[in-house]
Amino acid sequence: MSKIRIAIAGYGNLGKGVELAIRQNDDMELVGVFSRRPPESVKLLTAGIPVYSMADIANYKDAVDVLIICGGSATDLPEQTPALAKDFNVIDSFDTHARIPEHFANVDKAAKENGHLAMISLGWDPGLFSLNRVYAESILRNGKTYTFWGKGVSQGHSDAIRRVKGVKRGIQYTCPVEAAIEAVRSGSQPELSTRDKHERVCYVVAEEGADLAQIENDIKTMKNYFDQYNTTVNFITEEEFDRDHTSLPHGGFVIRSGKTGDGETTDQTIEYSLKLGSNPEFTASVLVAYARALSRMKAEGQTGCRTAFDVAPGYLSPLSAEELRAQML
Amino acid sequence: MSKIRIAIAGYGNLGKGVELAIRQNDDMELVGVFSRRPPESVKLLTAGIPVYSMADIANYKDAVDVLIICGGSATDLPEQTPALAKDFNVIDSFDTHARIPEHFANVDKAAKENGHLAMISLGWDPGLFSLNRVYAESILRNGKTYTFWGKGVSQGHSDAIRRVKGVKRGIQYTCPVEAAIEAVRSGSQPELSTRDKHERVCYVVAEEGADLAQIENDIKTMKNYFDQYNTTVNFITEEEFDRDHTSLPHGGFVIRSGKTGDGETTDQTIEYSLKLGSNPEFTASVLVAYARALSRMKAEGQTGCRTAFDVAPGYLSPLSAEELRAQML
Repeated sequence: MSKIRIAIAGYGNLGKGVELAIRQNDDMELVGVFSRRPPESVKLLTAGIPVYSMADIANYKDAVDVLIICGGSATDLPEQTPALAKDFNVIDSFDTHARIPEHFANVDKAAKENGHLAMISLGWDPGLFSLNRVYAESILRNGKTYTFWGKGVSQGHSDAIRRVKGVKRGIQYTCPVEAAIEAVRSGSQPELSTRDKHERVCYVVAEEGADLAQIENDIKTMKNYFDQYNTTVNFITEEEFDRDHTSLPHGGFVIRSGKTGDGETTDQTIEYSLKLGSNPEFTASVLVAYARALSRMKAEGQTGCRTAFDVAPGYLSPLSAEELRAQML
Repeated sequence: MSKIRIAIAGYGNLGKGVELAIRQNDDMELVGVFSRRPPESVKLLTAGIPVYSMADIANYKDAVDVLIICGGSATDLPEQTPALAKDFNVIDSFDTHARIPEHFANVDKAAKENGHLAMISLGWDPGLFSLNRVYAESILRNGKTYTFWGKGVSQGHSDAIRRVKGVKRGIQYTCPVEAAIEAVRSGSQPELSTRDKHERVCYVVAEEGADLAQIENDIKTMKNYFDQYNTTVNFITEEEFDRDHTSLPHGGFVIRSGKTGDGETTDQTIEYSLKLGSNPEFTASVLVAYARALSRMKAEGQTGCRTAFDVAPGYLSPLSAEELRAQML
């Protein structure tokens, strides 16, 4: 059987993750990377894979089964995904929740008109967390769903720390509050705001001679970013920063606490959690699994746009339907 | 919109759970219960629902959209599901893992030949746990998957306890070993047998004057059942037994510990867990959600047999595809 030919558009952390995830799948091959940077300036992790200019991408439309678009959600994907869906079957990780219906409509139209299949908003949230919310709420009809994020790096809050006077380097982790998770697991269905569920932990390398107490106070009282949260500020050395805070961990929990039975008094809890050593590498692994699903669904003649809700789980696996029933049920 | 008309075949703990779960879904109605017992001897929890003899079930084939078959996997379902798939769209919870391919083939043939749609082996294991194994292994290609069961009642082990001399009443819970779960969560990918992962906790009401030390010894040394496990025997009063040990809790964990990245050194963990106050009520809730999926997929013209792997998650939800994208992604 011929391999699924995958190309990557955009070579940042996510694009690199896709490159590495493809290596872990025997039924796929990476046929090229497209970049807006000069191709000769882009160094891949894999020898022998060509880098092309994004401007020339349409020339390669017959050489690619699935194009994984690794741009940002703020400005890249709203333009790129509909445009590229004219020439390619595409996958993206568009994660601006409020704009998903609009993005879906644009991509669906472009894909349908050109006989392509597209999948949007894949990754873990939106993506696997969304799936788990739907499964859990469809099964436990009477209940409450809680999402906790972290421990993970928030880019916006890290940027905010770095703007504080006297801060040389800084990073902020959003952490779920353990007591809140335990309250949810107990079945008591507490009312919890995002703030009740999370705390903020900061690691700062201060400039020489800076006033540490002032830095700590400036961070903790920063409007909207930190003032309404339980915030901890830890001062560390630059060596510690480089050693312990350069990966991009993330994760979180989706918990559905529900009631069943006569009088609806039986507690039932469904919990899904991720502990990710690297957020972009994990997101990339999700995109690559859905690339397999896309290539199969396209082979069945499907066109238009899909989300994780539309994809039967069996399509993601390299195993056949028979193998899945025999080995995995 | 007209409601999905559901009937139940077999009215034990699972059938009762289905009856109660249907109450939690506005888009469904229970139209009848079929039993092998004399209908007048079967008392439902809901007023006004007719009970019919299983012998007459074919007479009702036009009055039922989905028949949920609540028989046992050992002898009932291998006969009932293929037979009933001739006249109905059917769902079952067949859970004899080794015989699933054979059961699938029988049900698929009967359903296809008669233009019906069937779904088998639904519940949580097989079912939701199977789904999570497939999602997790498709995404994290390099890794190990661990399934832990419990805390939950094992019927076979409880029966074994009750055969010990001097035991008046007894129940056995299979419990996951916390240290084994922690080892898995650490990313170390330990080699663990079923035995390493579980311990057995027994609650016994002894007959008056019985030799407690002898009972404990007889249980702990019982070949295959207990001798190879860490087993605890607790003696309790009959009042305590009635108060604390008559529900049927269960649950468990599916954990995938994987590696990604350059050199595959990044730890990634996906964990799914269930804490169920009532195993039959939860399994029933899963069956009822899949009844919704079945009725939609049948309306699209699908026939034959399906498993959880073949059903896109969106089909389970009462929300439309547009609503799901806007509210749940």
